[in-house]
Formats: sequence, structure tokens, C-alpha cells
Amino acid sequence: MERHFDEQLTVLKHTLIKMSALSEAMISDAIRALCERDTSAIPRIREHEDQVNRLQIEIDGICLRLIALYQPTAGDLRFILGAVKTNGDLERMADLAINICEEAERLLENPLPGALTGIQEMAALASLMVKESLHAYVNRAVEQARVVLLRDDRLDDMKRHITADMTSLMQKDPGVIKQALDILLVARNLERIGDHATNIAENTIFVVKGLDIRHHRE
Amino acid sequence: MERHFDEQLTVLKHTLIKMSALSEAMISDAIRALCERDTSAIPRIREHEDQVNRLQIEIDGICLRLIALYQPTAGDLRFILGAVKTNGDLERMADLAINICEEAERLLENPLPGALTGIQEMAALASLMVKESLHAYVNRAVEQARVVLLRDDRLDDMKRHITADMTSLMQKDPGVIKQALDILLVARNLERIGDHATNIAENTIFVVKGLDIRHHRE
Repeated sequence: MERHFDEQLTVLKHTLIKMSALSEAMISDAIRALCERDTSAIPRIREHEDQVNRLQIEIDGICLRLIALYQPTAGDLRFILGAVKTNGDLERMADLAINICEEAERLLENPLPGALTGIQEMAALASLMVKESLHAYVNRAVEQARVVLLRDDRLDDMKRHITADMTSLMQKDPGVIKQALDILLVARNLERIGDHATNIAENTIFVVKGLDIRHHRE
Repeated sequence: MERHFDEQLTVLKHTLIKMSALSEAMISDAIRALCERDTSAIPRIREHEDQVNRLQIEIDGICLRLIALYQPTAGDLRFILGAVKTNGDLERMADLAINICEEAERLLENPLPGALTGIQEMAALASLMVKESLHAYVNRAVEQARVVLLRDDRLDDMKRHITADMTSLMQKDPGVIKQALDILLVARNLERIGDHATNIAENTIFVVKGLDIRHHRE
């Protein structure tokens, strides 16, 4: 019984990692479409979205079966409930990557109003947070989870910076309002991806310490 | 044992309803601050946020204990896992109300660039969706959940309409770019509140039918 439980728990972890890798790929493909004005990756983003949606249903099913069949308690039960939440966060990240993809498609219709270095930096940081938060979660690695929480403050700063830049650009040149607005939305979507990585990092600390640090950041 | 389980399940439902009522109050107070330019409700919004955060932790604890102590199966287990998700959605709604509150505070610094009828209509619809989705969830009422799913399409249309209006306003009068941008963000936050109500409605159908309709809308 215990061996079966451990096997199923390993399946759960692998499925979460697979889902997170797909969400990361979607983010980087959407940013490539935007920054390199290369639409070739867009059909792949849509395929990945379908896979993410299927995995989301699969993961909820695994969690439900694990609880119903093995009645786990304490840390294992917290891990499985945390996986239900993490699953939701990963799916939301994929949705946000789709938003970025749509903004990229609109932005391809006109020349860009300026360099997108800030967006590329934000995307790199957000992707790193996704990878690290998932790694922290499946390995119950509290220290790595804390690193993610710190990175989120930096990501928020970057978003504020881009928002200010785009607002003043719009004021100077109303001809680029539509494009600047879309870039601003890309930055907001990246910030929200970081928020979901932060949720996963907080779940990690809850699973390991049995301690709820949401709304009580050290 | 069964009686205790039912009692605890009732506590869970009441706590979810309490949390949802707080989120609804936060939304309507934030919209009042914005549309009636009345800041008196802002301290109450912050108090409600603290209460929502405490309830979120409490609800996760109730769910964890219900599973660990009573090993529920089938519909009851799905209800409790769904409550963990619904809890996350309600907390996110309260966060979005805080965003609207911050946008309202910024908008109070300058005259409004026009009437906010569209925003008030969106807010009324989003609040209705919150109430209905929670009611559907705790009563396992599938038909009411389906109504929420339909309303979400209307809410998205309203947001698109406001986005188009604000974009053309900015293009005509660059002097109101900042304000128009904030109104646009309010509309997006209301749209996202509707998305969370939609998640709760989908959870309802999953709990009752054991059927996952996410990504397979009828």
C-alpha cells in the first residue's frame, strides 16, 4: 500500500513538473514572438495550452485518487492539497502566456514604439521564478521557496518602471497609445505570472513547516 | 462521527459565505469610492481585507482537518477539494478589490475624464456573479452555476467596450491618459473578478457531476 502511494506521489510530482515546463515554454515562446517579431512559435503555444489544460484535469484526478485511496495525513496530505492549488497556479500562468501571445500578435501589426529590453528582463525573471517555485515545491525546499518570494519584489519594481515609461511615451506621442498599452499589458501579465510563482513558493513553506505564511511575510 | 462531519461541513459552508460577503462588500465599497468620489469607505475596505486573509487560512485549516479526521470520499471529498480552490478564488477577488481601491485613490487626484456608467454596470454584474457562484457552490446548484458561466461572456463584452472607449479617449485627449489608463485597469480587475466567479461555478459542476467542464464549455 505504502509503495503504491509513493509511486503515485512520484507520478504527481512528474506531472506537475511536466505542466510547469509547458507553462515556461509558453512564456518564452510568447516573448520570442513579441520581441523577435517571429510568429512561427504561435501554433506551438496553442498546442501547449491544450496539453496544459489536459494535465490540469489529470493532476486534480491524481490528487483526488491519492486522498480517497490512501487517506494520507500530515505532511503528505498538505502536499496533495498544495498540489491542487499549485495546479491552479500553473494553469493560470499558461492563460497569462496566452494573453501575452495575443498582445504580441496585435503588436506585430505596427512598428514597436521602442526597445523591449525591460520586457525581456521581466520575462527572464518570471520564467526563473516559475522554474524555481516548482522545483522548491516538489522537493519541499523551503530555502529555494524563500528566494522566489524575494525575487517577486524585484519583478514588481520592473513592472512599475515599464508602466511609468509607457505612460510618458503615450503622453509624448499619442500615435503609439495602442502599442504602448499592449506593452503595458504584457508587463502586467508577467507580473501576475510572478504572483502565481509566489503562491507556489508559499504553498511550499506551508507543506514543509505546516505554517501558513500568506499575509504574514517574514 | 457522521454528525460531527456534517456539523464541520456546515461550518465550512458558512465560513465560505462569510468570506464571499466580505469580498462583495469590498468590491462595492471600492466602486463607491471611485464613482461617488467618496473615500470614507476606504478604511473599511482595508479592514475587510484583513478579515478575508484570516478566513482564507481558517478555511484551508477546516478542509485539512475534515479530510484528515473523517476520510470523506466521492462527492464530499470533491466538495472539500473544491472548497480549497474556491477559497483561493475568493481571496483573489478581495485582492482585485484592493487594486480597484488603489486605482480609485489615484483617480480622485484629478477630475474624471467622463461618466463611469459602464464601470458601475460591470461592477453590478461582477458582484452578482460572486454572490450567485458562491450560492451555487454551497448548495451544489448546477443550474445556477451555469447561469454564472453565461454572465461571464456579457462581462467580457462590457470590458471590451470600455477598453475601446478609453483608448479612443486617450487618443483624442492625451491630457487624460493617466486617468483613462486607471479606468481601463478597473475594468480589467472587474473582468478578473468575473473569471474567479466562473472558476467557482465550474467547481460547482465538478463537485455535483464529478465532471470536469473546464476547457470543455458546453
